[in-house]
Amino acid sequence: MVKVTVHVKVKEGVINPEASALERALAELSFDEVKSVTTGKTIELEMESTESLDTKVKEMCEQLLVNTVIEDYSYTVEEENKA
Amino acid sequence: MVKVTVHVKVKEGVINPEASALERALAELSFDEVKSVTTGKTIELEMESTESLDTKVKEMCEQLLVNTVIEDYSYTVEEENKA
Repeated sequence: MVKVTVHVKVKEGVINPEASALERALAELSFDEVKSVTTGKTIELEMESTESLDTKVKEMCEQLLVNTVIEDYSYTVEEENKA
Repeated sequence: MVKVTVHVKVKEGVINPEASALERALAELSFDEVKSVTTGKTIELEMESTESLDTKVKEMCEQLLVNTVIEDYSYTVEEENKA
């Protein structure tokens, strides 16, 4: 078994309403040290290891997990010591 | 300047509808290798480094960024070489 962690972020130049709202709210709460905020998503998949793992992960991302029009993604793979 | 990355995850035992929906959808798309899915959020804060950085980050998380009733969080701090 492996654990695949997909990191999804909004593409550069695409407006991120959630991040803008957090930025304003932090300023209102007087956290003036904060200069910018960006948000992203992580999706952890526990799956059987296969030879074509990279192809499988790319397919899952591009078919379902990621909106590739406005989002970029990267992923990491960790071996799990479970049977 | 430092980059603080906050990782937010739903607490163990709390239902995660997004993850369940993704799990079903992946099964429907015949990605049978996937055994479980969990989702989380990342919030990146670019901020001035201060002595009480840990206190500040905890305050921001507990006042705004994290719903501590149903979510757990952890964070990492990276120095940024910008002026």
